[in-house]
Amino acid sequence: MKISALLTSAGINIGLCVLFLSLYSVLRKQPANIRVYFGRRIAEDHNRLRDAFILERFVPSAGWIVKALQCTEEDLVAAAGLDAVAFNRLLVFSIRIFSLAALLCVFGILPLNYFGQNIPHHRIPSEQLDIFTIGNVEVQSRWLWVHCVVLYIISGVACILLYLEYRHIAKLRLLHLKRATPSPGQFTVLVRGIPKKTKESCSTEVDDFFTKYHASSYLFHQVVYKSGKVQKIMTGAKKACRKLKHFTDTTVDQSCKAITYRCCLCGAPSNSFQLLPTDEVVQSSGKADLNDSVFNTDNEECAAAFVFFKTRYGALVASEILQTSNPTKWVTDLAPEPNDVYWSNIWLPYKQLWIRRIATLLGSVVFMIIFLAPVTFIQGLTELEVLQKRLPFLNGLLTNQYMIQIVTGYLPSVILQIFLYTVAPIMMLFSTLEGPTSHSERKRSACCKVLYFYIWNVFFVNVVSGTIIKQLKFFSSPKDIPVQLARVIPGQATFFVTYVLTSGWASLSSELMQLFGLIWNFVRKYILRMKEDTEFVPSFPYHTEVPKVLLFGLLGFTCSVLAPLILPFLLVYFFLGYVVYRNQLLNVYRTRYDTGGLYWPIANNTVIFSLVLTQIICLGVFGLKESPVAVGFTIPLIILTLLFNQYCRKRLLPLFKTFPAQDLIDLDREDERSGSMERIHDRLHTAYCQFPETEDIIELEKIKIDGNGEEESCSSGESKGKESPQEQEPRRELSHPTLKGLPVSRLQNAVRSITFLIRLHKRGVS
Amino acid sequence: MKISALLTSAGINIGLCVLFLSLYSVLRKQPANIRVYFGRRIAEDHNRLRDAFILERFVPSAGWIVKALQCTEEDLVAAAGLDAVAFNRLLVFSIRIFSLAALLCVFGILPLNYFGQNIPHHRIPSEQLDIFTIGNVEVQSRWLWVHCVVLYIISGVACILLYLEYRHIAKLRLLHLKRATPSPGQFTVLVRGIPKKTKESCSTEVDDFFTKYHASSYLFHQVVYKSGKVQKIMTGAKKACRKLKHFTDTTVDQSCKAITYRCCLCGAPSNSFQLLPTDEVVQSSGKADLNDSVFNTDNEECAAAFVFFKTRYGALVASEILQTSNPTKWVTDLAPEPNDVYWSNIWLPYKQLWIRRIATLLGSVVFMIIFLAPVTFIQGLTELEVLQKRLPFLNGLLTNQYMIQIVTGYLPSVILQIFLYTVAPIMMLFSTLEGPTSHSERKRSACCKVLYFYIWNVFFVNVVSGTIIKQLKFFSSPKDIPVQLARVIPGQATFFVTYVLTSGWASLSSELMQLFGLIWNFVRKYILRMKEDTEFVPSFPYHTEVPKVLLFGLLGFTCSVLAPLILPFLLVYFFLGYVVYRNQLLNVYRTRYDTGGLYWPIANNTVIFSLVLTQIICLGVFGLKESPVAVGFTIPLIILTLLFNQYCRKRLLPLFKTFPAQDLIDLDREDERSGSMERIHDRLHTAYCQFPETEDIIELEKIKIDGNGEEESCSSGESKGKESPQEQEPRRELSHPTLKGLPVSRLQNAVRSITFLIRLHKRGVS
Repeated sequence: MKISALLTSAGINIGLCVLFLSLYSVLRKQPANIRVYFGRRIAEDHNRLRDAFILERFVPSAGWIVKALQCTEEDLVAAAGLDAVAFNRLLVFSIRIFSLAALLCVFGILPLNYFGQNIPHHRIPSEQLDIFTIGNVEVQSRWLWVHCVVLYIISGVACILLYLEYRHIAKLRLLHLKRATPSPGQFTVLVRGIPKKTKESCSTEVDDFFTKYHASSYLFHQVVYKSGKVQKIMTGAKKACRKLKHFTDTTVDQSCKAITYRCCLCGAPSNSFQLLPTDEVVQSSGKADLNDSVFNTDNEECAAAFVFFKTRYGALVASEILQTSNPTKWVTDLAPEPNDVYWSNIWLPYKQLWIRRIATLLGSVVFMIIFLAPVTFIQGLTELEVLQKRLPFLNGLLTNQYMIQIVTGYLPSVILQIFLYTVAPIMMLFSTLEGPTSHSERKRSACCKVLYFYIWNVFFVNVVSGTIIKQLKFFSSPKDIPVQLARVIPGQATFFVTYVLTSGWASLSSELMQLFGLIWNFVRKYILRMKEDTEFVPSFPYHTEVPKVLLFGLLGFTCSVLAPLILPFLLVYFFLGYVVYRNQLLNVYRTRYDTGGLYWPIANNTVIFSLVLTQIICLGVFGLKESPVAVGFTIPLIILTLLFNQYCRKRLLPLFKTFPAQDLIDLDREDERSGSMERIHDRLHTAYCQFPETEDIIELEKIKIDGNGEEESCSSGESKGKESPQEQEPRRELSHPTLKGLPVSRLQNAVRSITFLIRLHKRGVS
Repeated sequence: MKISALLTSAGINIGLCVLFLSLYSVLRKQPANIRVYFGRRIAEDHNRLRDAFILERFVPSAGWIVKALQCTEEDLVAAAGLDAVAFNRLLVFSIRIFSLAALLCVFGILPLNYFGQNIPHHRIPSEQLDIFTIGNVEVQSRWLWVHCVVLYIISGVACILLYLEYRHIAKLRLLHLKRATPSPGQFTVLVRGIPKKTKESCSTEVDDFFTKYHASSYLFHQVVYKSGKVQKIMTGAKKACRKLKHFTDTTVDQSCKAITYRCCLCGAPSNSFQLLPTDEVVQSSGKADLNDSVFNTDNEECAAAFVFFKTRYGALVASEILQTSNPTKWVTDLAPEPNDVYWSNIWLPYKQLWIRRIATLLGSVVFMIIFLAPVTFIQGLTELEVLQKRLPFLNGLLTNQYMIQIVTGYLPSVILQIFLYTVAPIMMLFSTLEGPTSHSERKRSACCKVLYFYIWNVFFVNVVSGTIIKQLKFFSSPKDIPVQLARVIPGQATFFVTYVLTSGWASLSSELMQLFGLIWNFVRKYILRMKEDTEFVPSFPYHTEVPKVLLFGLLGFTCSVLAPLILPFLLVYFFLGYVVYRNQLLNVYRTRYDTGGLYWPIANNTVIFSLVLTQIICLGVFGLKESPVAVGFTIPLIILTLLFNQYCRKRLLPLFKTFPAQDLIDLDREDERSGSMERIHDRLHTAYCQFPETEDIIELEKIKIDGNGEEESCSSGESKGKESPQEQEPRRELSHPTLKGLPVSRLQNAVRSITFLIRLHKRGVS
């Protein structure tokens, strides 16, 4: 591929990017698209931009870029959680290191490579790209020390930056723990593998065990039921019923919608549980688990339990200690946050999990290997002859020189990109089958799988299949891998540059445009005439975006010293990504759950892997170029990088696996001193709710006892998520004054009967 | 190698074994050798066998075998600790599985192999050994399914037996925890990485931290000092002084020795610390750490501390939790038992440890690679021509057919054996440099290193160097390894059989005979005329014996189906080993420290590795023999074996890493109920003692306050080890009635001055 072809490709992509960005800046101002581009903001203030037609709306502008850049880290944490910050820091790290690398490599190494051999040079546009790689440097060249020094500088600075970021995020993680309003997850332990004794209630058993062995900190517990088939049918019926309501609702007047959203979706900052002071409330909701068990007679059996503790430290201790002499019984872990709980997995028998994990691991490995076929095919397309042979219908097109440049520079990446769209959902499916107990864990696990997939299928297989036909032969001789990679990488740089242009830039534009969301929004609004689906605000797809950024980092590192031409394009990608992702995190996506920065260790490991791989490849290249000095200096660099990684694992990784006792105890004491511990304990009672139906009852009780129903129903949205809007209507009918005088126990019975009637009614409707 | 050569070798070895065993049965009855053969027993009753000359003493007998077999598991635990039981169970497991394997393979597979090809058979003694291996079976033979079935049976039964043993030892570990007298280690946490603030005493800092964050369970602490150069010089001077005393003591009458041994070395079962009831004692010894700090002004600074807790559970919690937001500060681990503490490592800065670990890892890898040279050389010797070329001086000998058989069958193994003797000390040195805090951890770490060494250098390198010259070429193509191994192993079976005969049988005999001990004892007693060195009773060399047994297991598994002729010889080895090791554990070695059965996970992993390796080799063999059915059935077997391993890791391994909270809490409650907790807490004060000199003072205080000096000084030997006999004499002089009336504080000052004088005196002597 020649420089001109590359420039064509770059030109097309730059044009597309500018077009998309301008389009975005116009589209985002249209009120019709507000749900697509401001999903998160709507939660806070949904009245914005509902104004009349003005010309400004149709003029492209760059204000959104300024806004995205102005936002501080505190804003980002508040708006999108710690994961967003970790992702943001990854982009910042990439920009920093690749700015340095671009500076060193473009001005230091590129000329060396270009004038590496005494050959006549054409005009630059018609030069082959290969001439800019290290492949053009003479064997035994006395300039190879420059490459070695640059490699040292890049590795060293990368390690320092990595360490600073790692430490920063670890610190943020602790700060987040301290600053945030006390979350129920900190006080709660998820117990699985509860041993089953016949005739004895599981609930009693949990109570007995924790009263006996954790008496000083145990508060109460809540059993999780294994949802049987009946439960599934019920849920299905409910969904159908809700769908029906959707359609009928669209004809009802829209003015009342505002209130509905405000109360139940947006989740006011609400410390409103603090308004429940009476002992009765605590008692009645303390029996919530019993109520559950009464209601869920159709649930098979208990399989797990949330156990609540008086202090964060108590919960931590209970979660870290091996409970009994059978490590598969009474397995304790810190519970995920209420919004984060993945209810359909939580009742899975603990004994199954290890086998599920192995099965999904095998599944994803098999999937990766099967995926070799399309990748191998695509790689062939960068070479014109192969393309003409494989896709003969293109022969007519390929007579034009200009078309050839487009096709060889652009088509393979596009095809690969389309194939890659199937990867994330499949890996997500594998992660679901693995049995994680929280949404965030599921996404993180998917992120790792997608990352392995990218590194294997985009990087390694492309590298190999591009030049050597038999991949297995390549990987069956580990000793030769550095040399082989060294031979191949400079040649494959062409492909990687086009990959950055097409996959990188284009995917950012499409991410910004939200094409699918835009089209779907249009179709639903103007063709299907459905009510706006306000419930569906997606969360940020870390499992696709983190691996993407890391993959580009890998490409950048491996190509930096060997084929520096990729770096300017990469740098543009990272800059653009920084703006786009910040904008998306602030406006589009809603953060329902958060891993607490656990994506950073993944990023750190991948960068270290990239660095070491780069060094190994350079070792091979220096060997091929017969420069013993450069080889000799590269080996200690590899060892130093690995030592640095080991140091990080010792020094910082533990902070991402658990919380330090000191901080938790300090927090507990502060809460106790300020007297807010009581309120926190009260809130725990309603924090976790397995079956949304039972919410009606718990809340009804509260409303009756408190007497100020409207106030309370507003606030509960925070812990309920998206199930609530439909649940409110029956409740309002029931708040009839005739029930007011009754005692609590009779009220509870009455409520149960009524809920049963509601269910029957719903079934009738569906 | 022919059958006759094998039989010659076997004959020689059997003869030697019988000779050694008979010799042993005579030598053990000689009073002069009692310290060699009954080192452990002497501790309990040293008067035995000091009777007159009787004829019976010179008649070989088999009584010791009966005694060794009769001993129950309880006896073994009581006499030699849990590690001995784990080692014993490893032998039992080996006997069981190889009995089955020998039965199946000798009667099922051996005939198949022998008649595998339609070739004329010679008389059996002159057959080549290769004819009994799977190499003799025809390609595409329809009898290969027998091999496959036998492989299934062996793998399945091995897994079942392994699981049973694993569970049994895990249970024993818990039982041991419950049954044993409460050991100080259960209540103690070793804290390292104490942050240093200027001008503030480290002791105060430890006190502050644990009072603040572990107030409910914290008892007190004891600081460990970094021993400076002055300390080292002092210790050296003291040793010299003691040596001088040794020589003078030999002329003194020997009658008083008995009492000395009884009091200070043998360590009476002594609950004698319970005899100290007064509060004063508790207080005064509670300040032991302060005394330490006063005395050790020549010690540089504090680096670690033993922190004592009120309950076992409290110590467990403190040891498992991450303390602060810096994981390299306040690092807590359960402390080793007092006798087990490796004082010279305990003050190592915690931050150094990870780098030490990496350095020693690299060191041992380099050592393993360097060791290739002798091994490659030795392997060549099994082939006659190579032997004649390399060692030309043997040419004269090698004309005789009989000599040739001896030399090819015996010499290589002997040379290898001699080289292998250097391995254990070197690996032990590496383990020491690694910085473990306990003797048992050091030995376990050395055990792992020696094991890797054996598997790599005895198994793999022998296999490879025997036939293929370039080892690196062999290991550089991982895909071909099964096929390569499959080609090589049956041919190498000859070497392994002789290895079992020479290295296995002979090493057992020499272990039983204790040749070095015997000779050294003789030399010292009759030539040097030194006093009997009663202090030196060695502990069992698990770090050499466990790897040896596991290596023979590996040989057994890999050869079982392919070359079953090795199995009878192996079985004899294991039977003999069972008797010999039990005898040695009961009589010879003293158990000063114990890992609590932690050798079993190593054994389990190695056996699983051996099984999987066997299956992979069989896969290769079946592939070479073109039997797709056998290949197809072997692959699921490998997966099943790995799954089994994973299950064991989930189900049983955690029990070897920590203790279950339930059992600890139960134990704590029982102790509290029975009122023995107070006594346990009292004993903690004197449990750990870094500088033996200071013992004088602590004990002196006790003696003064209690007034019954003689009684107490006897009992303290338990925690002091071997330093005490010489320390008693100055103490006796000091127990003068003039000091009796003084108050405690002045007494302490006086004691300090006196100790200083003693030191000066000692220096003068040396």
